Amino acid sequence: MRLTRDNINQHVVRAEYAVRGELAVKSEEFRARLKKGDTSLPFQQVISANIGNPQQLDQKPITFFRQVLSLLENPELFEKEDVLINGLGYKTDVIERARWLLKHVGSVGAYSASAGAPAIKESIAAFLERRDGFPADPSKIYLSTGASSGVNTLLHVICADKNSGIMIPIPQYPLYTATLALLDAKAVPYYLDESQSWGTSFETIKAAYEKGKADGADVRCIVIINPGNPTGASLSEKDVRSVIDFAKQENLVIMADEVYQTNVFVGQFHSFKGVLRTMQKENPGKYDNIELASLHSVSKGMVGECGHRGGYFELVGFSPDVEAEIYKFVSIMLCAPVIGQCLVELMVNPPKQGEPSYELYQKEYSAIFNGLRERATALHKAFGKMEGVDCAEPQGSMYLFPTIRLSRKALEAAAAEKRKPDEFYCMKMLEATGVCVVAGSGFGQKEGTLHFRTTFLAPGTEWIAGIVKFHQEFMDKYR
Amino acid sequence: MRLTRDNINQHVVRAEYAVRGELAVKSEEFRARLKKGDTSLPFQQVISANIGNPQQLDQKPITFFRQVLSLLENPELFEKEDVLINGLGYKTDVIERARWLLKHVGSVGAYSASAGAPAIKESIAAFLERRDGFPADPSKIYLSTGASSGVNTLLHVICADKNSGIMIPIPQYPLYTATLALLDAKAVPYYLDESQSWGTSFETIKAAYEKGKADGADVRCIVIINPGNPTGASLSEKDVRSVIDFAKQENLVIMADEVYQTNVFVGQFHSFKGVLRTMQKENPGKYDNIELASLHSVSKGMVGECGHRGGYFELVGFSPDVEAEIYKFVSIMLCAPVIGQCLVELMVNPPKQGEPSYELYQKEYSAIFNGLRERATALHKAFGKMEGVDCAEPQGSMYLFPTIRLSRKALEAAAAEKRKPDEFYCMKMLEATGVCVVAGSGFGQKEGTLHFRTTFLAPGTEWIAGIVKFHQEFMDKYR
Repeated sequence: MRLTRDNINQHVVRAEYAVRGELAVKSEEFRARLKKGDTSLPFQQVISANIGNPQQLDQKPITFFRQVLSLLENPELFEKEDVLINGLGYKTDVIERARWLLKHVGSVGAYSASAGAPAIKESIAAFLERRDGFPADPSKIYLSTGASSGVNTLLHVICADKNSGIMIPIPQYPLYTATLALLDAKAVPYYLDESQSWGTSFETIKAAYEKGKADGADVRCIVIINPGNPTGASLSEKDVRSVIDFAKQENLVIMADEVYQTNVFVGQFHSFKGVLRTMQKENPGKYDNIELASLHSVSKGMVGECGHRGGYFELVGFSPDVEAEIYKFVSIMLCAPVIGQCLVELMVNPPKQGEPSYELYQKEYSAIFNGLRERATALHKAFGKMEGVDCAEPQGSMYLFPTIRLSRKALEAAAAEKRKPDEFYCMKMLEATGVCVVAGSGFGQKEGTLHFRTTFLAPGTEWIAGIVKFHQEFMDKYR
Repeated sequence: MRLTRDNINQHVVRAEYAVRGELAVKSEEFRARLKKGDTSLPFQQVISANIGNPQQLDQKPITFFRQVLSLLENPELFEKEDVLINGLGYKTDVIERARWLLKHVGSVGAYSASAGAPAIKESIAAFLERRDGFPADPSKIYLSTGASSGVNTLLHVICADKNSGIMIPIPQYPLYTATLALLDAKAVPYYLDESQSWGTSFETIKAAYEKGKADGADVRCIVIINPGNPTGASLSEKDVRSVIDFAKQENLVIMADEVYQTNVFVGQFHSFKGVLRTMQKENPGKYDNIELASLHSVSKGMVGECGHRGGYFELVGFSPDVEAEIYKFVSIMLCAPVIGQCLVELMVNPPKQGEPSYELYQKEYSAIFNGLRERATALHKAFGKMEGVDCAEPQGSMYLFPTIRLSRKALEAAAAEKRKPDEFYCMKMLEATGVCVVAGSGFGQKEGTLHFRTTFLAPGTEWIAGIVKFHQEFMDKYR
């Protein structure tokens, strides 16, 4: 045979992943042209606001983390402790942590146990206990290659056939729809409420569930992304409780994608695990059968170490038989990158007050947090002034997801180019400004509404001014 | 619902991955008991000979690689070049290479392009040109999370439905059967010839293909593992040509798993890409339509950096449409670990003669190579003396795969424990010696034959003596 688009796996063909789609490819072409000295473009740099990739833009890695990793990569440096301390300025807690990690993983060049190095799982469990105020069991924790591979694992195990339905928020991070397409399982969408800062509601979820069932789906699981991607929403404890109650009522597995748990600007983060344990304590017996998988990652937050592909998920209430299948599934790919596992350990167990690296860590962490909040606010303010644009207040994550209202003339121009209106708008923005965002249709949006997603990671304000100017010209042109 | 083994994805349930199966789990229990001071076991240490994990055992990482990686993890060290050189003994080429890599990836904490950092792909292409004497195209190279994720990607794209057939060698590395089980596609087995040092033959492959077709398989691809896992075979150029001729005749995609390409003790490695290009040159037009995917990894060879999960595959002759689908598939998981990508670059472009780090690199590389060959020979010699054991000469890879012949009494004892005879034998070996190997049934073997796979990575000869002693006692007990 000769492989063609028509005879290969059609589930792959049907999967869509807009974050790295046509716009992203085009932006890389522009970047390459600029690098070669092309001066024919109307901008001097490409801003990749399409992807939450902090260190590609301005964000510097946290010093403590990287100092420890440098020692893990080259353990011979332990023999020169005085050069490390006096010549390179490494603090003693950097050296101690690296020694501790290396003692437990052996070598970052060796495979770890399939679900991750046991000592790192223990450290994660201790973090979860501190965070939630309830015990966590290291044997229920699985290290993963970023949170993405965790999602991949869980959906692979949960979806049994093409009727298996997974409730996903709309708009959603397209990893979910793409993976469900690959598995030929059913996405059962529930819409987030833009008028309520993209919150969830029991009634909307219930109606979506009933519709999914009526359409023949064997609904098994509900996915929540909190804080939200692409919406930037941050759920109240009431909303979290409401999802848990719904999952209990309909016997659904809860998959809580909590990778943005430290990117919270309004209120505070409420973990599904913590709220579930509280509800279990308040109502003995009532919530015992809830199955919850919650995911976290080193890619986001103030860590921002996407390239290291570190993450984990914790299981609560899964049956041992199913856990054994999850274990087998992850073992086929051997293990998550060990240096990424070590970075997970550093993330969940950073320097504590009184320790030599604490002050610098705290300073760097706060500066990143404040910088993100400032940029989010500046961008939100700019969107507020743009004609036909509305944008919910930035509450969390790394994104804003404004609504745009385009004229009939603009819609016709898009149709003439055989593009969806929001893709047309985003392509024009890229061509005019060098700013790459993702069209709302890549995440799903209510029929008849248009959005785009932008990160607020890029430094400076020039690119924001560029968007404002482009938008006015676009509106004028298609008025 | 409540997830149970019976209602989750049955393709996951049916997948088997013996390398990390019951024996491996048991061996970790023993290791934990020993660590806790348990003295009731008849051995003092567990030897994990079940998995090709060099740095878990004796193998030290190569200094040049790790020095570069330490700088990539902590780029602030570039500001102390003088301490690096005079205090830590880093050579100038270490610093230059790290600067070069960092210039091209930006930060190892940032996502790279989906298929890998462009500069690293160019470096791999240059390596392939040097290795094969034919040009390589960087845009056809995809960095992966170890070779395993490359295999996963390729099989996902190639297999269209449950009739899709993939020819795999038996015995094989169980990643193949496990992934085909997950995809619900058909494994079409062809047997390697133990009497011919586990070589392949045109006739055997042809017969297996015909049988697969007769069984209803839509045979699409042939997998070759060269050097062989678990067999340790190393294919002659004639064998490689013969596979290419067969693939041409039946229009099959060739998937060449060449992760052991530097672990060759007899003869030399013949890459499928190199042989294909030679055949194309010799016979203009005749082999133009061959589709070849070849895979490599940092996990094996003298690099042995499994934990870093670095690898790549190169496509030859794939249609651009199909390449676009492969690109999309890998983009869903964002990118391979960036530090692992950098390690791939170091592997394919090590210090050259005359460069400051060359001498040490060469010394370390040779010592690892010679050590592996010596251990392979010692283990082979020991097997040669064992009653009822036959083992092909070690030609390549990291494994020996001896045949064992067990008495009727031993077979009955296995049946009484409801175990396959080879699993029974391996479990008894583990319990008596602490040496963990993998039963041949985990890889597939001809009906009525029994084998086990062992790595020859563990240092010393004591563990080999332990196997010899156990074997004699086992044979005596069940005589």
